[in-house]
Formats: sequence, C-alpha cells, structure tokens
Amino acid sequence: MGYLFCGRALSYGEAKARASLVFTFASDNAAGVHPRILQAINACNAGFAPPYGGDDWSKKLNATFSDVFEHPAFVFPVSTGTAANGLALASITPSYGTVFCHSLAHILNSEAGSVEFYSGGSRLVPLQDEACKLSPAILENALDGYGPTALHQMKASSVSLTQATERGTVYTLEELKSLAGYAHSRGLKVHMDGARFANALVALGATPAEMTWKAGVDVVSFGATKNGTMMAEAVVVFDPVFAEALRIQHKRAGFLHSKMRYFASQLLAYLEDGLWLANARHANAMARKIADCLIANSATELAYPVESNQIFAYIPPETMATLKRFDIVFRTWAGPKPNLHRLVLSYADDESVVNRLRAALKT
Amino acid sequence: MGYLFCGRALSYGEAKARASLVFTFASDNAAGVHPRILQAINACNAGFAPPYGGDDWSKKLNATFSDVFEHPAFVFPVSTGTAANGLALASITPSYGTVFCHSLAHILNSEAGSVEFYSGGSRLVPLQDEACKLSPAILENALDGYGPTALHQMKASSVSLTQATERGTVYTLEELKSLAGYAHSRGLKVHMDGARFANALVALGATPAEMTWKAGVDVVSFGATKNGTMMAEAVVVFDPVFAEALRIQHKRAGFLHSKMRYFASQLLAYLEDGLWLANARHANAMARKIADCLIANSATELAYPVESNQIFAYIPPETMATLKRFDIVFRTWAGPKPNLHRLVLSYADDESVVNRLRAALKT
Amino acid sequence: MGYLFCGRALSYGEAKARASLVFTFASDNAAGVHPRILQAINACNAGFAPPYGGDDWSKKLNATFSDVFEHPAFVFPVSTGTAANGLALASITPSYGTVFCHSLAHILNSEAGSVEFYSGGSRLVPLQDEACKLSPAILENALDGYGPTALHQMKASSVSLTQATERGTVYTLEELKSLAGYAHSRGLKVHMDGARFANALVALGATPAEMTWKAGVDVVSFGATKNGTMMAEAVVVFDPVFAEALRIQHKRAGFLHSKMRYFASQLLAYLEDGLWLANARHANAMARKIADCLIANSATELAYPVESNQIFAYIPPETMATLKRFDIVFRTWAGPKPNLHRLVLSYADDESVVNRLRAALKT
Amino acid sequence: MGYLFCGRALSYGEAKARASLVFTFASDNAAGVHPRILQAINACNAGFAPPYGGDDWSKKLNATFSDVFEHPAFVFPVSTGTAANGLALASITPSYGTVFCHSLAHILNSEAGSVEFYSGGSRLVPLQDEACKLSPAILENALDGYGPTALHQMKASSVSLTQATERGTVYTLEELKSLAGYAHSRGLKVHMDGARFANALVALGATPAEMTWKAGVDVVSFGATKNGTMMAEAVVVFDPVFAEALRIQHKRAGFLHSKMRYFASQLLAYLEDGLWLANARHANAMARKIADCLIANSATELAYPVESNQIFAYIPPETMATLKRFDIVFRTWAGPKPNLHRLVLSYADDESVVNRLRAALKT
Repeated sequence: MGYLFCGRALSYGEAKARASLVFTFASDNAAGVHPRILQAINACNAGFAPPYGGDDWSKKLNATFSDVFEHPAFVFPVSTGTAANGLALASITPSYGTVFCHSLAHILNSEAGSVEFYSGGSRLVPLQDEACKLSPAILENALDGYGPTALHQMKASSVSLTQATERGTVYTLEELKSLAGYAHSRGLKVHMDGARFANALVALGATPAEMTWKAGVDVVSFGATKNGTMMAEAVVVFDPVFAEALRIQHKRAGFLHSKMRYFASQLLAYLEDGLWLANARHANAMARKIADCLIANSATELAYPVESNQIFAYIPPETMATLKRFDIVFRTWAGPKPNLHRLVLSYADDESVVNRLRAALKT
Repeated sequence: MGYLFCGRALSYGEAKARASLVFTFASDNAAGVHPRILQAINACNAGFAPPYGGDDWSKKLNATFSDVFEHPAFVFPVSTGTAANGLALASITPSYGTVFCHSLAHILNSEAGSVEFYSGGSRLVPLQDEACKLSPAILENALDGYGPTALHQMKASSVSLTQATERGTVYTLEELKSLAGYAHSRGLKVHMDGARFANALVALGATPAEMTWKAGVDVVSFGATKNGTMMAEAVVVFDPVFAEALRIQHKRAGFLHSKMRYFASQLLAYLEDGLWLANARHANAMARKIADCLIANSATELAYPVESNQIFAYIPPETMATLKRFDIVFRTWAGPKPNLHRLVLSYADDESVVNRLRAALKT
Repeated sequence: MGYLFCGRALSYGEAKARASLVFTFASDNAAGVHPRILQAINACNAGFAPPYGGDDWSKKLNATFSDVFEHPAFVFPVSTGTAANGLALASITPSYGTVFCHSLAHILNSEAGSVEFYSGGSRLVPLQDEACKLSPAILENALDGYGPTALHQMKASSVSLTQATERGTVYTLEELKSLAGYAHSRGLKVHMDGARFANALVALGATPAEMTWKAGVDVVSFGATKNGTMMAEAVVVFDPVFAEALRIQHKRAGFLHSKMRYFASQLLAYLEDGLWLANARHANAMARKIADCLIANSATELAYPVESNQIFAYIPPETMATLKRFDIVFRTWAGPKPNLHRLVLSYADDESVVNRLRAALKT
Repeated sequence: MGYLFCGRALSYGEAKARASLVFTFASDNAAGVHPRILQAINACNAGFAPPYGGDDWSKKLNATFSDVFEHPAFVFPVSTGTAANGLALASITPSYGTVFCHSLAHILNSEAGSVEFYSGGSRLVPLQDEACKLSPAILENALDGYGPTALHQMKASSVSLTQATERGTVYTLEELKSLAGYAHSRGLKVHMDGARFANALVALGATPAEMTWKAGVDVVSFGATKNGTMMAEAVVVFDPVFAEALRIQHKRAGFLHSKMRYFASQLLAYLEDGLWLANARHANAMARKIADCLIANSATELAYPVESNQIFAYIPPETMATLKRFDIVFRTWAGPKPNLHRLVLSYADDESVVNRLRAALKT
C-alpha cells in the first residue's frame, strides 16, 4: 500500500517523479512554512484557549485585515485555496448562475469541481485570451444571450479573475477597474482568486485596497500558503451582505476550526511587519533571475512576460534533457506551441538555485 | 470590529464568557496541541517536499492506519470533524437518501447542515433514546414506511452513530455489532462519528478493528483534534468502493492540502507509540475523578454513566453559583430535567483541576 | 412486469388495493379533470402556437392571477404540488437555511425530499401542534438558538404553512397574519402550501388577497389539480425579487413546457367564472355531509373539526370492516390514538357517495 | 403586465415575433397535440382512478415499452425533455462527475443548467466536431488527464449524445456502437438525448432495441412532445440499478404526477399502431421536400445533410427578406459561417407549407 494516497494509486515512476520535484522549480507549494510563521504557531500553543474563534488571535483577524485593506473586512480562514475559491464564489453566485472565468483558470482546471460543489450546481464559462486576462470586450461577447428575457439560459452572476494570472502575468490596476466596472454594469459580482495575491501586489507596487475594493473587487480568495503559511488562506469580503452569506457556509463546509488560534496566528504573523510582502518580493525577484539565466544560457523563449513568481517558457527538449541530468525537473504544460514549461519560485528559494541552474546550463 | 469573528457579532458578555471558558471544563477543544505532535509538525518543516500528498509523511498514512486497524484502510485527512462527518456520510448516502441518527447527534445539532451540504440534499432523521444510543429496535421502528414500494419517501441509506456518544456513554462491542448487523440487513450503511474515538476505545479496552470493521462499521470519522492534534482528523474507510467515492469529494471540498505533510505528520505522531491511547486514558480517568469529586462534595446527580471523558450531571443552581465565583464555568445543556450541565476533560487537564474543583466545592 | 411502475414493484395485493380505491374517499387525486377544464385543453389545440409561453394563453396568466389576487403577481406553472413546493421554498430559502414546518407537513412526509433537492441542502425543522397549525409561540420556541451569533446552526430562513392544513383544519385570517407577522419580525419568509387553497378560501369566505399577501404570505403554492385540473399548479409570488429567483429555477427544473398553452389554458379555465370556488364549495359541503353521516350512523368520533374537504376521524374497527365489505376503503392514518382514518371529498363526488355510505353503515 | 411570462418581460417586438413564428418552420414545438393522442387523453377522463401511477394506463407503461424495446424497460414519465435529460444524467453521473457532450448539445446550451441541478454539481465538458457527432477519437482526447491517479480532476462519468443531433444529422448504428463501446471501455455510462428519437429511428430504419441497448446506450431521454404528445416524455432505462437511482429522484423532482393516467395515456397512444413512427416519417419527408425546394429556388446551401426533420442551411439575406415578406420566419443560428438558418418540420406540417415556400421563393 506504500504508494497509495487518498485512494489514489501512484505508480512507482510517479512517486519517484514527485520526490524529485522536491529539488526543483516545480511548485511554490513544495516550500515549507516560513520560520516566523512556524514560530507564531508554536507561540500560541501555550495553555487553553476558547474554541471556534473565541481566542485572542482569531478575534484580531477582522481588525487586522481591516487595517491592511483600509476598509472594514470580514475574514473567513480556510485551509486551502480550493476551499477559498469555492466559498468565495458561492457567496456571490446562486446555484443557477454562471461564473465567467479564463479557460486556463485554476478553478476550472485544478479544483475538481469545487465551485460547482460549493454553489450547488453553478457553471463555469471558460473564456479565451492570449495574455491569460479577461477584459470588458471578452466579457461583453460572452454575455450575449444572457439576461432577463432569455428563456433557456442560466443567470450570468459573476466573473472570477486570477491575480497574478495562471500564466504569471499581472492585471494592472487600470485593467482591474475596467473589468470590474464593466462586470458591475452588467450585474455581475467580481471575485479575485488571489492564490498569489502578494506576488501581484508587490509587482504592481499597489496597496491591498487599490488592488481589491477600490478597483471593484467584491470577494477575494486571499492566498498565503504558497507564500509562507502552513495551510492558512482566507476569504475576505468587504460587504456585510456577502459576509452573511459566508458565515454559515464557512461553518458547514468544515472550516470553523475548533482550535482556530492555529490558523489565526499564521495569518497574523504573515501580515505582521510586512513579512508577506518581503516574501513575495523575494520570489518575484528570483523568478526574474531564473528567467534571465534561462534566456542567457539556452535557446529558451519566454511564453509570457515574467511579472510575478512564475515563468512560462518554451524550452528546447535538449535543454530539458540537460536539466534532467542535474535533477532539475519541472512540469511540461499544455500550450499553444510545444515545449511549454513552467518554473515557479517561492520565498524559500535562494541564490543557490540560480547557481545550480546556471551550472547545469553551462555544461 | 473587535468582537467580530467570521461575520459573527459577539456581544461583550459573550466574548468575555468565552474567555473565561479557558480555565474550565467547557470543552476538550480548549486544550492546545500535545507537545509530541507539535514537535512532529516542526520536524517535518525541514526543506522542500512534494505537494498534495506526495511527501514521505502522507505516503505512510494508509499503511500506518492499515496497521492500526488490521485491515487495508484508506485515509482522507481533513481539518475538522464537521468536514469528516460530511464527507464520510456523503460517501454512503445519496442526495435523495436519509441518514438515521440520534436526536442529540452532533451532525444534527452542531454542524450547520454539513451532511445536507456534502451529500447535496440528504435528510437527517432524528431518533430518540434515553441512553443516547441507537439500537436495532429503534431503527426498525424508524424504517417503517421506507422501501422500494414506498411512493413518497426518500431512500433509507445510512445510520450514523457517535462513539463515544454525545452524552459520554459508550456503545459496547455487542451493541455495535447488533446495530450494524441490523442496519446492513436493511440495506443501510453504517457511519461512526468518532470525534472521541480514542476515548471510547480505551473505555472498551477494544482494538480499533473490533470497534469498527469487525463490528460492521463501514465509514469512520476518526477524531484526533480533541485528543491532541492541532487540526487533523480523517475519514477512514475499509472498502475501495467508498474510497473511490471519497477521492474526488475530498479534493473538491478543499481538503487535499498542498502542504499535506503538516497534516500527515500530526496523525502519524498521534498514533505513534500509543500516544493517542495514553491521552484518552488520561482524559477518561480525569473525568472519573471530577465526577467523583462532584458527587462527593455537592448535591450533584449524574445524568448518564461517566464512561469516557464527558460528564453530564444535574448540578444544583447554588453549586453552579459557587463554581462561578471560582471562575469554573461550563455549559448548561438542554435536558429532560433542568440543571443539566456538561463537563469535559482532555488529555491536557491535570490533577490541579480536581484540586481546584474540590477547593471550590468545599467553601 | 405488469405490476411495475416507475421501478416500484407492486404486490398483487397492493395493486388490487389501489384499484379498489377508485370507488372510495381515499384521495381527491382520484377524480378526473373537470369537464370545463378538459374542454379548455381541447379548445387550445387548434393550430400552431409559439412555444415556451409565447402563446396567447400563457401570456394572459400573470394578468389573470394579478386580477384574482388584486396585486401584481408572477405565475410559474408546474405540473405537481411537489414541484411547486420545492420551487417556492427554494426561492426564499438558501441551501444553508432551515424551513420551519409542522411535523405533519406534506413537504416533510410525502415529497421524498423535494425541498432539500430544490434548495440544494436546506433542512426541514418539524414543529408540533395539536391542531396541525403553527403559531408565533411555537415558532418563537423553535427559533431559540438561531441567529447571527450562533456558531453551529443553519440560517433560520422560512416558515411553511399548509392551508387548508394536513388535518383538514383552516387557519383563520387572524392566525395567518399573526404567524406571518411574527415570522417577518424574525427575518423569516412565509410560504403557503396551498394544495387545497380553494377549499380553505371558501371555508373562510375570504378573498385570495386576504389569505395571501395581505396576511403576509410571500410565496404561494397554488394547488389546482386536486380541485379539477389535469396537472396544472403554480407558484405565485408578489415580489419581483422572488420572481427573479424563480425564473431560471423554474426552467432548469424542467417546467418551462414547450407546449405551455396546455397548462395555461387549464389554469385560466379553472379561475374563469369562479369554477375553482364552486368546485371547492361543493367538496367542502360533501365532506360536511359525509362527516355528519358517519357520526350519525356509527360510533365515529371526529379527530379534527371538518373545516374543508378532508375528514379525520376515529372510526371503530367494526365499522371499518363493514365499509370494506361495501368496497368503501380509505387510508388508516398514524395518529395520537389508534383507528384514525382520513376521508377526502372532491369536486367530483356527488350525493351518491353519501347514499352509499349511509346504506353501508345501516347494515 | 400583458407581455410578462414567468417573470420574463417580453418586448412588444419579441412578443410579435413569437406570434409570427406560428405560421412558420421555427419549431416542432409549435405544433399542437396529435388528434389520436388528444383522444386518448379525453378517453381516460372517465371516472375515478388510483393516483400516482396506480391506474390502468400507468401500470401498462413498463410492459409496453419493454415490448417496443425488446428488453425489460423501466419508464419514468416526465413533462419536458429538460427534466428527462436532467434526471437521466443524474442517474449515471455523481455530483463530482463530468458529462462529455458536444459543444452544440441542448443540455449545454438550452436547458439553463438542468444537468448541474439534477446531479447536484456535475460539469458538462463540451467537445467539438464538425458533423455535430461525438466519436471514440474525440472522447479519447477529452479523457486525457482524468483517472484514478489524477489529483485535481472531477470523475469522468458519462457521455451524452443527441440522436438525431442538434444539427439534424443522425448517428449510424455503427457510430453508436463504436462510441458507446469506447465509452464503456473507459468506465463511462452512455446517455442518449432522444428529443427527436423517432425521427432518427425511422431515418435509420432501425429498431428501438438496435438504436439503444443493443448499441450500448444505458439511459434514454425518450422524446415525444415534438412528435405529437402534449407534454409527455420519459426516461427509459434497461438496468434495474439505474431504475433504483431514478425512482426517488423522479418523485422528489415533482414528476410522480397524482393524475398520472393523463401522461401514461399519451405515451401509450403515441406508441400504439406505430403512430410515433408515422409522424416521424412524415416530418422527415417534409424536411426533405422543403430542403429540395430551397435549393432549387434560391441560392441556399445546406450546412449539414438533411437526415431527419431539421434543416440547417446558409440562406442569403435577400432570400430571407423575401420570405419575411410572406410571413415565413425562422431563427438565425450561430454557425461557422454567417447566414445559418434552421427550419424544422413536424408531424403537423402538410404540403401547403411546401407550396407556400415555393410561391414565396418564386417571386
């Protein structure tokens, strides 16, 4: 039974492949927990605390996020981005509604139907765009045929955008405003999948407020795990109406943790003294260096601009073979052209990975 | 905004009441994480690890549980008992099925509709019994009117029992076998809500195998958080058919954690060297002592036999007033008679709580 | 395969028993379609008509109901009361909400989970009352523990009352106002299951407006099939917000019939020239006569006042044996005392049934 | 309120447009009920009958369909194709499963999310093919990435094909066998949306058995309304396991009609003496004539072969303008090239429509 996990039979090759990923650029989820966050978890273990959010850490969450976002905020901690996205979209999308998203969206491709589950039957409508971004024009086209006189269509309810995008690009504030403004004008609510929220934020040099409610974003999946927490993410909303829709859905899905202090302490430490921003800046800078190194030392071509901590590049098979010999493995991606690969950098990667890559490429 | 949590407005009184719970017998969820489990979490933080269960800790889970349960087992880690129960019951109950449970069941009273949510519309059918246990006779009576010729009824699909029960009593192995056997004979699957699994196990002096699959239990919510983990529970099944039904539901609900090692390491440490059993034995013994102390020093009457780590007792108002003066506060419970109160002891309570109670009662 | 229906295996005895029901008081659903309504169906068959409600009959529905209810009304035709109740309650109850209803409610006991299905996971909370009616006091008691500070409860969302009730009694206008007023004061919406709407209406001598929106009812399941249509019922709402919630749910459940004219024509004929009221008056009067005949000619005792077209009575076994010999069969009902039976009269029953009963009882 | 229907506000123009459709080729739903079926409905109105399928007509349904399909069949009557498709697919697709279908499928484009609703959260995966048919190769490509080792995907559960297709083409028996065989080999169940089942059947000259279970179809939406019934369709399954899954879902959705005889009598009359086949043959033949007339008398080009009762053709704007002057209006369709139009013929269209079209085109 050694290679079974959650009922999935892993082949030997697959298990090995995964192990080898440990040493590579395959995922920002491969990093551990940031020491300061781990310390915060340990620190809150002293003694007893009221369960279900009655503890001192949990009670600070709303106030702390409200400060960070410069707006009264309602925070619902969860343990995965999948749960955050499911809950967030269920708070703004009825079971008979559609969610417009990019055809490469994580909610569409990698969350096993969580939005459909959390909303109880909604539909994701995939939209195409080369830069992996949605726009008013794309949305306008998609909305054709929906509306109160349509007899046979679901309700056009919400739009979900990913910031940074699934291809590592970042919506500008103007793009966000323009998209959210148009969405609102058509009666849609706006969700931001912020799995890499901090990476986008520092890339823009914007404030959390500017990148969310000031731009028209209604509901945020606030990612933190890829950037240093253990398993703490949050749904953040700014309108009490959405908070009310989330309050019970959050509990019944199983995220009102009895020992909530261990989640709250992670999020507080994450936000404290700008740790989250420093981590993201580091990861983004590392991605820039790795991309430069690839281009300088091989016939690699960037598929998308490197604007956050992800690199999408066309890397020739011979280069990939070389890297593999050096145990540098990362995932091949389906793309418009062959040989598309993704490299992701995290807060935990240091200069040694650049050196290692350079050394490999120079052989 | 200081007293808001997850959109819930806490009154000052309520917030204060919660704080005071810290020092009392109010909940086994008030305890922190057992030091050995916290150590295990810290230990697994070294370096990178494959995400989504590809790490070394997660890959051991099925094998470890299979050893403990003496049967091939499929383990689905989750972060709350609410999620465990929802997923577990959804794996054996279709959206048009009913779950028979006790009228005091946690799934009915304290999980905000998680079973209805996870199953997509099933119904909980509450059954009455004084000892807080289900039996073949009670089930037979409840099944009247269901079946393939019934025109207007849901499908009778499953029965959920809680071990230890919501009133601190413990099903004997004979009672489990008899109930599960009857349920199976009527086409129902059997779920065990094991929020206090270990407490029941040591109370019976039984093996995990005897208390589950050997007795006819199909699906187990394996609780651990109340007994020492940080937020690690698991759905455990013994039949690959149920595992297949859980595989994707577990993911889409948001419990395939990216950094799964931090969950797996908790569960492994919990089971290692019998830590879980030692913790449970301690909590049960403490409950016995507290109950004895109450009876010996006040006009308290036990409402149910104290068989695990929960005490349900009728405590006179004057005794309660005394205890309150000593900051010993616990919850009043709705019961057949007034003045029903619950005290819960955990692995983390030591002799000082007995001394403190005795001192208070002697005034 | 002769005794199979919809996958249900009927025993020979059961099939025979059903056939014998034809000549009895067992159900107001055993009656056929009223001749004037059948005529209307036939009349609308001439020629082609736009599908999906674009026909002349369907386009009159809202206006006609608005006249009858003296308020702008939105009408959603369906083919069963089960669908009407499911849709109606789903328009006012989120998937995480509870519906408070009487423990004898049809939605709880005879609709196979339609409310849970249509709402996607809501819960019916059964309340007890001897007269089969809900009241502010009963509701107040049930609402204890719900609310924005409750951590583990579903949302208290709606109350569903049945008019005429499942025991043949009828809420007075004062009782309706009082119940709905209290429900609104606690944030609940109010649904009326009007499977026997017309029977209650004529019993009260009230207007449709008085018995619905003027009393505070938000959403109505407007029953008609038991009172003369073939399979035409409707959800009727007075608030465009609920109409918007129903628009797509009605379609996706499969009730936006392509040849909608055949439904609309039934409802129009039903309402035309007071046919529905005349039918209901007749059925109620027949129930009164049958009840009087039973009391006068046997040791029968009424279990509930006969206020509409249903009789619930304690009938001695020897009387039942006599009636059975005369092929007069009706259902035994579970009740607080043994020997509870239900007789239902419909628009289609004439004096001959009274004569027949009297003749049987006189032997 | 005159132009409101089910909460939808119709513009005057839209309402007028709909009315004018009456005289055209816009929909086979515009036809009324076939006289023999209307007669059967009227005939079954005599007297009382047991409700909920206990009547003589309903009890014949399974046996009659079993004869027609040469296999024990379980029949679940419903009132729309939307309900049939939703129920049928929910019987073979779990809430966490995907349904593979053509990107032009009616279930995807015109049923407002009924499959998502009935299954409680499944996902439709649209596949592309020029001839509007699915094939093993298309399916194989789509299945890439699914399976027991996939961590982030839904379960690949079923495939839904439409026969005749949404573009009027018809799968050959070989194509059906090949597609269903491949689907089964990959663990998928097969659903046939038979909204125009009879039209396809007579086009192939096949038996119902050959076109369904002999070819590997598991679940059939048996359409009849477009071909002469009032509102009677059925889900037909051949395996008791699927019947068991449908039994309660059929009831809870609201399709266990109390006066079921009026549905059963339609279906019996439809199948009797081959009425359904005669109607379909006529509609197909009329489509052929209309297509020929269009080609012969205008610069019209067929977009798809005319194999059943639907014509998809590229018709020049000037021709459309001419037809409009003669009140011959039908819908423009989105297509790979502009000017795609659909004409549908029904059992109720006679030679006069050909003459009328020819006369118009000759001007």
